[in-house]
Amino acid sequence: MSEKCTLVISGSQFMSYFSDSKNVVCWYLEPELENEIKRLHRVVGNASVDDYHVVVGTGSTQLLQATLYALCSPDDDDSNPVNVVSAAPYYSCYPELTNILRSGLYKWGGDARTYNEGGPYIEFVTSPNNPDGRIREAIVKKGRGKLVHDLAYYWPQYTPITSCLGHDTMLFTFSKCTGHAGSRIGWALVKDEDVAKKMTEFISINTIGVSKDSQIRAAKILGHVSESCLNPGPDNFFETSHILMAERWEKLRQVVAQSGMFSLPHYPKQHCLFTGKFSTQAHPAFAWMKCNKEGVEDCEKFLRGQKIITRNGRRFGCDPKYVRVSLVGKEEEFKLFLERLLAIQGTSNGINHM
Amino acid sequence: MSEKCTLVISGSQFMSYFSDSKNVVCWYLEPELENEIKRLHRVVGNASVDDYHVVVGTGSTQLLQATLYALCSPDDDDSNPVNVVSAAPYYSCYPELTNILRSGLYKWGGDARTYNEGGPYIEFVTSPNNPDGRIREAIVKKGRGKLVHDLAYYWPQYTPITSCLGHDTMLFTFSKCTGHAGSRIGWALVKDEDVAKKMTEFISINTIGVSKDSQIRAAKILGHVSESCLNPGPDNFFETSHILMAERWEKLRQVVAQSGMFSLPHYPKQHCLFTGKFSTQAHPAFAWMKCNKEGVEDCEKFLRGQKIITRNGRRFGCDPKYVRVSLVGKEEEFKLFLERLLAIQGTSNGINHM
Repeated sequence: MSEKCTLVISGSQFMSYFSDSKNVVCWYLEPELENEIKRLHRVVGNASVDDYHVVVGTGSTQLLQATLYALCSPDDDDSNPVNVVSAAPYYSCYPELTNILRSGLYKWGGDARTYNEGGPYIEFVTSPNNPDGRIREAIVKKGRGKLVHDLAYYWPQYTPITSCLGHDTMLFTFSKCTGHAGSRIGWALVKDEDVAKKMTEFISINTIGVSKDSQIRAAKILGHVSESCLNPGPDNFFETSHILMAERWEKLRQVVAQSGMFSLPHYPKQHCLFTGKFSTQAHPAFAWMKCNKEGVEDCEKFLRGQKIITRNGRRFGCDPKYVRVSLVGKEEEFKLFLERLLAIQGTSNGINHM
Repeated sequence: MSEKCTLVISGSQFMSYFSDSKNVVCWYLEPELENEIKRLHRVVGNASVDDYHVVVGTGSTQLLQATLYALCSPDDDDSNPVNVVSAAPYYSCYPELTNILRSGLYKWGGDARTYNEGGPYIEFVTSPNNPDGRIREAIVKKGRGKLVHDLAYYWPQYTPITSCLGHDTMLFTFSKCTGHAGSRIGWALVKDEDVAKKMTEFISINTIGVSKDSQIRAAKILGHVSESCLNPGPDNFFETSHILMAERWEKLRQVVAQSGMFSLPHYPKQHCLFTGKFSTQAHPAFAWMKCNKEGVEDCEKFLRGQKIITRNGRRFGCDPKYVRVSLVGKEEEFKLFLERLLAIQGTSNGINHM
């Protein structure tokens, strides 16, 4: 689809800070992008868009901070920072982005499963979860909590679409929908107008809006993805990428079974509303891999010794026997990863035989 | 130059988060953009680039926050927030972006001229200044202070280039250099490698880098600007835009003189190293206008009644008799502004005659 999706912008286009003076919620959002976001969600059926406000961000990372700001901004100057929690294993960026500036508005409160303080809190509900690909619901469930649903991976190539979600604040990102991480485009679907306006306020002060060039590129590419969904077969973006992910997972599971040294999560077969198929399994963007080899306490360190770069389980609030491995790199990188994983088996067998 | 500067990106280009694995300071900086930034500064002669690290940001707004983070990050968890100051009239976004998250690292300390606390502080030195266009130097000058030079307007169309600056941390932005505000591209020239790395860390956590699409667009356009400087006459970008700004200022000064109701700053004639001309005057992007009309305490409110949108002097730490007026809008907007400014004179004369 590379040629069809080519972006052309002349030197004098999109020069202004402003995009849409009629948009009272998000003044820097290109109307074209808003339309394509809504169209794609309608085509895929993963999230409601009617009666939602769209707020665009510099990746969903910026939107996570915008939601914290919007959901915390207290009228009372002396109030304590609100606790921000998520169930372990949680996305490793949550604690970092929450605590980086030592905000007086909010602070990282740790694992949602062990959280039992009173007062207001915010829970990030990541579904499918990063790093382990599982479908999630809120954990804490207390009266004064607010939920942010991080749905970056709720697309048909990764997981069966089992319902059209309608949560208060839902975050998505171009990088995980199509792989265009370099464009730094994310979006939030927000029910409450005041929350959406507060999020816009944060992004206005943080970066005075979001790159128009990337908004226009995302609009164009998301539009082609929507159109591709009208076709069955290899032209359908999600069908093709679903097959790719399924192949990678099959190969990975083979290697892991052969090695006997690691374990991987298993996912239930479910009915996917998008494909209409009844026994669709999840094929997450990451493998959440546990090392069962005796003597290995730190799997990330162990794999680094084998020239396999992963993210340590500790960073996700878990045991360092776990690592997160990306499965959405280039084909040659994925092949190398499998080769090196197999080679470990060789090494360890060698050691065992000595 | 619109056609020459056309950006073309295919659907499969610039998809990764990463730009340059060899860049140990700023991993998400496109090498092409770094080269064009350095080339342009060498052509214009406004800032040293040799032995400087380039850090790119989502506009210089994000870089301002990155410098605060980099210059504050204390080892000691209990230290007090560092005061951030700038001399009034200061850029209205400084207090907003400093205080938005109630950071424990830094807080807005107000007007640098009246600042007399002990301990560490950071001073934003804006030169030419936003809003009043004046050339500035640091004000506080105490031992434990750190300076950030915001040089957004230090380009030949706005002000004579009187020396090649070599401060520790110098900020620039695509939006003010060429007018491409919608791309959200800014850059910092940073002497200290550790500071540059800390700034990169902030931007990595805040937005995981900066739009590649916009970096590539900025690289292309800045490249054409550099090339245009080889030619004298109307093809030279800065010469042409200097003439445009000079014309607007001349017209504005005529209208203001005719009205007798407002006053504007005057700027000295200086030798511009870029043009080689000896009596070059500043023609800032904004007019810092004072209303001298009796009974008008709030100039912004007064002008709003005449359908002229300005920014209130109060937001720059000054008397509300002052306003900041943008002079870099579209030609028709500028004409309308002058017409409406003249019309006030009519109204007020009318009132006087009654």
